[in-house]
Amino acid sequence: MGYKVAVLGATGAVGSELLTLLEERDFPVDSLRLLASSRSRGKKIRFKGEDLVVEELTHGSFRGIEIVLSSAGGSISKEFVPSAVQCEAVVVDNTSYFRMKEDVPLVIPEINPDMIAKHCGIIANPNCSTIIMALPAFPLHRAFGIRRIFAATYQAASGAGRQVMVELEEETRAVLDGKPYERTVIPHPYAFNLFIHNSRLHENGYVEEEKKMIHETRKIFREPELRVNATCVRVPVMRAHSEALNIQFDRDVSPEEAYEVLRKAPGVQIDEDRDAGRWPMPVDASGKDPVFVGRIRRDVSQPNTLDLWVVGDQIRKGAALNAIQIAEKFIR
Amino acid sequence: MGYKVAVLGATGAVGSELLTLLEERDFPVDSLRLLASSRSRGKKIRFKGEDLVVEELTHGSFRGIEIVLSSAGGSISKEFVPSAVQCEAVVVDNTSYFRMKEDVPLVIPEINPDMIAKHCGIIANPNCSTIIMALPAFPLHRAFGIRRIFAATYQAASGAGRQVMVELEEETRAVLDGKPYERTVIPHPYAFNLFIHNSRLHENGYVEEEKKMIHETRKIFREPELRVNATCVRVPVMRAHSEALNIQFDRDVSPEEAYEVLRKAPGVQIDEDRDAGRWPMPVDASGKDPVFVGRIRRDVSQPNTLDLWVVGDQIRKGAALNAIQIAEKFIR
Repeated sequence: MGYKVAVLGATGAVGSELLTLLEERDFPVDSLRLLASSRSRGKKIRFKGEDLVVEELTHGSFRGIEIVLSSAGGSISKEFVPSAVQCEAVVVDNTSYFRMKEDVPLVIPEINPDMIAKHCGIIANPNCSTIIMALPAFPLHRAFGIRRIFAATYQAASGAGRQVMVELEEETRAVLDGKPYERTVIPHPYAFNLFIHNSRLHENGYVEEEKKMIHETRKIFREPELRVNATCVRVPVMRAHSEALNIQFDRDVSPEEAYEVLRKAPGVQIDEDRDAGRWPMPVDASGKDPVFVGRIRRDVSQPNTLDLWVVGDQIRKGAALNAIQIAEKFIR
Repeated sequence: MGYKVAVLGATGAVGSELLTLLEERDFPVDSLRLLASSRSRGKKIRFKGEDLVVEELTHGSFRGIEIVLSSAGGSISKEFVPSAVQCEAVVVDNTSYFRMKEDVPLVIPEINPDMIAKHCGIIANPNCSTIIMALPAFPLHRAFGIRRIFAATYQAASGAGRQVMVELEEETRAVLDGKPYERTVIPHPYAFNLFIHNSRLHENGYVEEEKKMIHETRKIFREPELRVNATCVRVPVMRAHSEALNIQFDRDVSPEEAYEVLRKAPGVQIDEDRDAGRWPMPVDASGKDPVFVGRIRRDVSQPNTLDLWVVGDQIRKGAALNAIQIAEKFIR
């Protein structure tokens, strides 16, 4: 009594986590097909005690498939997702390619689950930094009305893919040993360094990641005029993103009111120990489901404004978990 | 024809850099006395081809000394700087202890050099994050009038002292080798992790480092009402701080106007290659004198507002270089 599922990009960082979560959350899988590029064909991956063989992705891969979880990059989604839709599969797409298309719902299940029913074959999973900001921001918006958000991000290696996580480790070891290291993915030094998010630069000086945070948040919140600004930075952390949020509201909001709202917010967990000086941290958030929030305080420089510190696992809620949650809502 | 100089805290990260800079910049040193805690007594440090012996700091250490460069922590400054002043030495103090005292000038030589002449024996060197923010912000304030600054910091290990730089290396190696590691200074994991700045938490939810950025900037700018907000974070980077600045002005300012002002600003260097996606980075700024600025763009969420990305060496301009520059102005 399960679904015929295919995972596209099964060998990547998010793909692996999708398989872990399908098993952990006991998603009703009748059959599972693992799809990847020809490079990974024949590779075996364990799922529920069985060794599944990775198949090469082709336009014919989707025959008989009901649900596709896609996480192999925008150009792959562009080329192959339409074939899946033609086969009447529903695709939860974790790439940026379809996110801003008008007839494609962009969903965070805790925020706009109603949009799932409006799909025409594709449901898009938002950008990781967007999800981690939006999950705590939306309940605050509903309760108090957000006038403007400024976000400064501290993004992990995982957002750039498994290979960059490996390279961060290898380069760090090389630096500690005083040896040279040749990078293949990121053009900047990464060990004990940080750099502006390595996505495409637009004419107005914003990088693509920042534009995603602005436009995706507006679409998810159904607030086309919502004022959002972001500066996106990659830091030498493995798999959890942190964000310093500065949020201005329509009225004065006390930290206590904000804590109260967020304590009840689904997917959000307050995590702080003021006496111990302990606030949300990437190492603590890694491998966990919630987006952790702490350090809510009044901005002393401007009325009606709060500072928040949020940390969430980029691979989980930032990607794979959110996709699985969409699929779970979809089958209900 | 030089000065009788003492360096207090000569064995620390900033102390070592002070000695390097005294030599590099050919500061007119007639005699140099190295002072530190009893733990470092007898240690030899090379200066201009000679081995100098570190002496234990006592209240009598300052007899005959004309200039003291002090960088041994607030409690040491509190106890010993008055003894130096009594001996008629002038102290450039790099700790936070005297910074906000009314009769103590707080100086960034590119901004308020005139304050040096007003000293009563002590000239305070500002906090590192403050200097790195203020150096590019001040010329913009003079040209366009700043209404509000929001800063999110990405602070290096060096700000917590040499021992933390060593621990970041050691802990990172331990994590890569899968071995346990016992930290002695910072109570949080640091390898591939980040955390809210480990300074004292105040009642209003701000940590001490954030308060320093707010209040010191106001004092240096001579703008007691200047609206500044900061979120301070320590990242696993060795010795350069980065800051995402969001600055609202009294009027519309184009990025071109801001670049124009900063290109002429002393101590500031524009560092970016838009085509290559290359912006200021900690590894590039390390060991360099200027504060590097790039990515000046209009904030799309709010009028009259610019985003800037600034990176500066915490040990140099953030501490030792600024102190030496103060001493250089003082003797002129």
